[in-house]
Amino acid sequence: VTELRITPVTGVPEVRSGDDVAELIARALGEDALRDGDVVVIAHKVVSKAEGRVVPAASRVQVALGEARRVLRRVGDMVIAETRHGLVCANAGVDASNVEGDNVVALPRDPDASARRVRSRLKRLTGVDVAVIVSDTFGRAWRLGQTDVAIGVAGMDAFLDHRGPPAMQGRVLNATRICVADEIAGAAEIVMGKADGICAAIVRGARINRGRGAATDIVRPPQEDLFR
Amino acid sequence: VTELRITPVTGVPEVRSGDDVAELIARALGEDALRDGDVVVIAHKVVSKAEGRVVPAASRVQVALGEARRVLRRVGDMVIAETRHGLVCANAGVDASNVEGDNVVALPRDPDASARRVRSRLKRLTGVDVAVIVSDTFGRAWRLGQTDVAIGVAGMDAFLDHRGPPAMQGRVLNATRICVADEIAGAAEIVMGKADGICAAIVRGARINRGRGAATDIVRPPQEDLFR
Repeated sequence: VTELRITPVTGVPEVRSGDDVAELIARALGEDALRDGDVVVIAHKVVSKAEGRVVPAASRVQVALGEARRVLRRVGDMVIAETRHGLVCANAGVDASNVEGDNVVALPRDPDASARRVRSRLKRLTGVDVAVIVSDTFGRAWRLGQTDVAIGVAGMDAFLDHRGPPAMQGRVLNATRICVADEIAGAAEIVMGKADGICAAIVRGARINRGRGAATDIVRPPQEDLFR
Repeated sequence: VTELRITPVTGVPEVRSGDDVAELIARALGEDALRDGDVVVIAHKVVSKAEGRVVPAASRVQVALGEARRVLRRVGDMVIAETRHGLVCANAGVDASNVEGDNVVALPRDPDASARRVRSRLKRLTGVDVAVIVSDTFGRAWRLGQTDVAIGVAGMDAFLDHRGPPAMQGRVLNATRICVADEIAGAAEIVMGKADGICAAIVRGARINRGRGAATDIVRPPQEDLFR
């Protein structure tokens, strides 16, 4: 029986522009905390801060419009926009919470590249081969509330294909393509919470395909999207 | 540090119409397996089967249209529909996979009531007060792949409110309302998998608000929905 364990990473200090997020996490974890095949989930906000994506803003919506490739809906002070990465989310991912003063935090310029950098840096620092997910908190169409999803992925496929039992495999309808990266990001959120200042978690025991996946693989091409 | 642990429930036999799902799960778990505050996640399919929601079908789309309150999109043999519970999903939740013969499985008539029944039955059988989530695998707008979400909830609120650190709490934007029920359903999917015949999982260590929540709380009212 494979058990899944999700442990919050505590003791990471406040991250500032230029910080090495992988080193801060590795130091907070201590030795021998990571295992081959673990997934390290990191809230994008610390990655954005380390990459200098904190910007002063009198108006968040203005920054959001600057980040957006396309605005899908606008309601008062809030836009639902498509980012340059293809992500569809509120305010193009520009976030005003938990930031000092009047600053806002934009998404990393290339969250998949950020995930790859953290991954190879963790490998160098700890010798352990982990997958990395950079997460953000997104709303959804049709459903209230938000969940964490993967906006950056490295060292694993974003998806896992489930097939039916052998007798059923001839039937096309049985193929289920699970976005395991999003499920892992959401699972990590459960232990991270927003209030605790915990910005990362280790997920152990998840069935993943090691590989060269990316969060851009998850973006549904606009021309195939029935709701854009 | 609160660790989250997710354990698959193995050894539940094939479920048939009239079966007592709670009893099958309790028996598979054995004694002392559940703890106060655990969340038991159950794939809706076994609940549907126990409730006799397996129906013969020459055409799944026909059954789906019968289950739907409103069709949002139709592409060939597939509809995106709103069920009578308000859920928006492919084929109104009617599923053709992992069912014998030409049968299809519809959603439980009232998945929240199903969750409440399983919960009170588990309480009677084991003496333990758990929350119960009935899950299903849904696609999403804008993002490829599917994730498990909560379609029935009992014994907990579907949401968890995160507030910013004390200094920030005056700012409205900091309020984040996490749909923890969906995150827990997705996390449970990671250990359940479709291929293994594992239909339930125990989630331990999740921060939840015990209470009288329901999955219908998650349904975004159509009139407030920007994408319907």
